[in-house]
Amino acid sequence: MTQLESAKKNIITPLVRSIAGKESIPASTLSKTIKQGKAVILCNNKHRLKNPCAVGFGLRTKVNANIGTSTDASGLKEELKKLNACVKYGADAVMDLSVGSCLQKIREGILKHCPIPLGTVPVYEIAVNARKNKRHFLDFGIHDILKTLEEQAKQGVDFFTIHSGVTRKSLAQIKIQPRLMGVVSRGGAILSGWIKRNNKENPFYEYFDRILDIAYAYDVTLSLGDGLRPGSIFDATDKAQIAELRILGELAQRAQSRNVQVMIEGPGHVRLNEIEKNIKLEKKLCHGAPFYVLGPLVTDIAAGYDHISSGIGAAIAASAGADFICYVTPAEHLRLPSLEDVREGVIAAKIAAHAADLVKNYKPAIEWDMNMSRARKKRDWKKQIKYSIDPERAAIFRKSSLPKESRACTMCGKYCSIKIMDESLK
Amino acid sequence: MTQLESAKKNIITPLVRSIAGKESIPASTLSKTIKQGKAVILCNNKHRLKNPCAVGFGLRTKVNANIGTSTDASGLKEELKKLNACVKYGADAVMDLSVGSCLQKIREGILKHCPIPLGTVPVYEIAVNARKNKRHFLDFGIHDILKTLEEQAKQGVDFFTIHSGVTRKSLAQIKIQPRLMGVVSRGGAILSGWIKRNNKENPFYEYFDRILDIAYAYDVTLSLGDGLRPGSIFDATDKAQIAELRILGELAQRAQSRNVQVMIEGPGHVRLNEIEKNIKLEKKLCHGAPFYVLGPLVTDIAAGYDHISSGIGAAIAASAGADFICYVTPAEHLRLPSLEDVREGVIAAKIAAHAADLVKNYKPAIEWDMNMSRARKKRDWKKQIKYSIDPERAAIFRKSSLPKESRACTMCGKYCSIKIMDESLK
Repeated sequence: MTQLESAKKNIITPLVRSIAGKESIPASTLSKTIKQGKAVILCNNKHRLKNPCAVGFGLRTKVNANIGTSTDASGLKEELKKLNACVKYGADAVMDLSVGSCLQKIREGILKHCPIPLGTVPVYEIAVNARKNKRHFLDFGIHDILKTLEEQAKQGVDFFTIHSGVTRKSLAQIKIQPRLMGVVSRGGAILSGWIKRNNKENPFYEYFDRILDIAYAYDVTLSLGDGLRPGSIFDATDKAQIAELRILGELAQRAQSRNVQVMIEGPGHVRLNEIEKNIKLEKKLCHGAPFYVLGPLVTDIAAGYDHISSGIGAAIAASAGADFICYVTPAEHLRLPSLEDVREGVIAAKIAAHAADLVKNYKPAIEWDMNMSRARKKRDWKKQIKYSIDPERAAIFRKSSLPKESRACTMCGKYCSIKIMDESLK
Repeated sequence: MTQLESAKKNIITPLVRSIAGKESIPASTLSKTIKQGKAVILCNNKHRLKNPCAVGFGLRTKVNANIGTSTDASGLKEELKKLNACVKYGADAVMDLSVGSCLQKIREGILKHCPIPLGTVPVYEIAVNARKNKRHFLDFGIHDILKTLEEQAKQGVDFFTIHSGVTRKSLAQIKIQPRLMGVVSRGGAILSGWIKRNNKENPFYEYFDRILDIAYAYDVTLSLGDGLRPGSIFDATDKAQIAELRILGELAQRAQSRNVQVMIEGPGHVRLNEIEKNIKLEKKLCHGAPFYVLGPLVTDIAAGYDHISSGIGAAIAASAGADFICYVTPAEHLRLPSLEDVREGVIAAKIAAHAADLVKNYKPAIEWDMNMSRARKKRDWKKQIKYSIDPERAAIFRKSSLPKESRACTMCGKYCSIKIMDESLK
């Protein structure tokens, strides 16, 4: 039975119980939210996962970090270093987006060392395999799709991004309302190309029920991808994006009726004042299914600093109800992320998620800020460092510049406001 | 005549004309906004300033960067390096917040090399002078205040932060509604301590008219400081903060009636969902006077990464109408900023300001994103780097990881979505 099926039968599984404990909520509440399709648990039932997590309404906002090789850089060792950084800095899930060589081996290596849920975009492997077999990378069919999905599910992948919403109908919208950037999702571009080349409907849409069979068997959560997400703020919330979202809403209901857990992916590049509308729209069109957003980036010009641009968008999105944030690193639009890029990306997304959790009134988040501010008021530096989002970095900063007044810092020195207030109260 | 006085007389000054040109708006519009007290021009009339700027409604969102020595680190050379970084990365104004030794000399050095408006918090020098003269740093009176203001104005300082709103009345609110962090503004703490020690009303409030005399004579813009800004999200929008804001609103009108340009300073640490309310409140209580915000930081726990926490808050604040953003660096709460901290702080604030300018429908901002997205669509890497917020960094990122496919990047390589779409359209 999948977690959704159990919840529908009002069975509280051990997994629901343990995750509810970590979230500081009653297990019955989590079970009910899963039953309503408003939360999912990312945990393949064949996968012995150390730290599974739930994503959805009433829960801590989760952060995903993307790792994986490209056709330019392909080494397991480097990806495992990145994986460790993701875990160290607090990512709740990772996705292996590899498109380099030896995909199975890379995934196996990552799965072996990964204590948190692992997601993939199976169409990447399908395209890479086609090319490996001396075919055009768009020469694949439903048989290849199901084979790869089955293999990956068997390996233990916990969630799949499936671009079932890139259909002839949603793509037609781009002709009606032309875009500045066209299709910028890698999976979305592959499926658009496939439809055009093969002159057939998207097989991930056409054979959705057969995909559900596999997802059901392994309790793999489907993450319905936004292949038509905007790649520029000028394309945000346009006809193509909304048409796809409507399709995803229908497919989400089909999945749930088959007891398959499902979440929805969202933009992308969106002007700041359109973000809340985007979240509300997803919640409405997809009946409250968990929303997994990539950013959104609030400007197109922050290459080199897109972790900041996306941190801004993600904090607003999650405050408005997005449940799951995909990190964006400073490398976005420029290169495959380095180890350092991964750290910066995870931390920026964690700050955004945490800022939203304060708005969502998530108690452990509130206590964390409370503890930090109390330590700050007492000028207790040990505790201030302990409660910093990255204690190692906070300690390095402080050590790099030790003040003469040991209980101040070198910003204000003798004129530390808290010190002045303490002394004037004497 | 001050710029406000000229605007009231419907005289369009050369300064208004040149700044309006840079803002791509009619000079008559800018003049009208200044007349209404909704915009100010930061430019001391004794100061030969290369790039003066205007702050307020209908204008590009401006960014201020704080530099200056502390009692722990005091060197002009280092501060000049920081100044150059501020200018290079696009700060519109800087404040010299020095509290170390040789304040006049430091300020003179900064003024000499500073092409953009310079602000100060004169009470710092007043307190430092008291100590230098072997008195307690809170042993100063109105004579000392006016002397320092006059000296700094004569030197060419363009705007003063004046904490006139820290009064017996506003401080009393902290007793009614106690705070977690108390008073965290350095100037606010000095004035609180002064009131307590001397058992008198804040001289910056008591003798406000005499301060206006000096500001008027040199057309120094007064930035009415929020000495009672929240230093923790739990203190945000509380009685003390609002009581001070009401006082600042009254003082702003007094200043304007005396033809002195004025803006209002704002928080601080504020939960994300309270930010818009804070902006609307300032605009209401201060009759549309330009709002200059420090952050706000959307969480207390991001020490080491407070440029991101404040970037989130600043983008939301400016989108809701804040006009001027004070940067926060990664060093905030930990140490005096390094040169590298200054760069990161300026860029984060610039991204926030720019994201807001897209919301404010500021045309040059929209064109910038449009140009970037067009370059991205064409996979024109020269132009993508040119239109990046920090072209130097974008070029370094790209160069560090050159792709085999010269018109892709190493993130996606062969599977670049834009490339796939281009080829499938052939």
